[in-house]
Amino acid sequence: MKILGIDPGTGICGFGVIEIKKGKPVMLDAGVISTPPHTPLPERLEDIYNSLHEIIKTDKPDVMAIEKLFFMQNITTGISVAEARGVCLLVAKQCKLPIYEYSPNEIKKSMTGYGHADKKQMQEMVRMHLGLDSVPKPDDAADALAAAITHSFLSKV
Amino acid sequence: MKILGIDPGTGICGFGVIEIKKGKPVMLDAGVISTPPHTPLPERLEDIYNSLHEIIKTDKPDVMAIEKLFFMQNITTGISVAEARGVCLLVAKQCKLPIYEYSPNEIKKSMTGYGHADKKQMQEMVRMHLGLDSVPKPDDAADALAAAITHSFLSKV
Repeated sequence: MKILGIDPGTGICGFGVIEIKKGKPVMLDAGVISTPPHTPLPERLEDIYNSLHEIIKTDKPDVMAIEKLFFMQNITTGISVAEARGVCLLVAKQCKLPIYEYSPNEIKKSMTGYGHADKKQMQEMVRMHLGLDSVPKPDDAADALAAAITHSFLSKV
Repeated sequence: MKILGIDPGTGICGFGVIEIKKGKPVMLDAGVISTPPHTPLPERLEDIYNSLHEIIKTDKPDVMAIEKLFFMQNITTGISVAEARGVCLLVAKQCKLPIYEYSPNEIKKSMTGYGHADKKQMQEMVRMHLGLDSVPKPDDAADALAAAITHSFLSKV
């Protein structure tokens, strides 16, 4: 079972692919789809669309796990995250991947046992769960891996 | 010059195509892309993607005019509108249509001369500007036509 985790965003969209081997998550791929600052939004969305299709073609995940958006600290950022998220959901549907959505609190709780863990604790748990020597960089890739790991825990794959 | 106007939404996404003939906007096509209630979001986004590609292939617009989203009365609705909007922008980019974005106030002001016009006033002005006998239905189609007419006024095509 291979799980593609997504941390949606228009400027930087994180992705991470894990595989469950002998009941443990192993990292296969991780990174970000990023565009230079001031790139027009439609160009960014097309880049996310093309890159995500490419990632799915290469890594062949069985499912997608993506962060649920239901609250916005900053309305402008929130809108652009939702626009990118719409494109990610579209690509998963076009590739016939089942989609699982998890709230930030569900991800934090499943990773650390605590729904209000901070960014540093989360990243350290991503490193530990995947048995890595260092925290995956950049942050958006680690967040995407956290969504994928959460799915492996909560769906008991 | 043919203008495709879009009123984005996941459940109902309005569209309207106008052409400028002798300096006046004429309606060529209008309607909605709609999915039954409780349809999963990824399926709705795929439907918007496929239908919008089909509309552009059939009506061959030169540009897209779409409502800008920068404020949300209801956060859940706002997120789903942004998700649909992301897919609409992606399709326009894939079809190489220049994209013009207008705020709700800009649309109201250009249509009625008043930035806080109500829905009924707006629809009546859509009817008048297009020289129609009755207001185009449903509301989402009329709103999409309003975005297209606004572009024709503000860009002076």
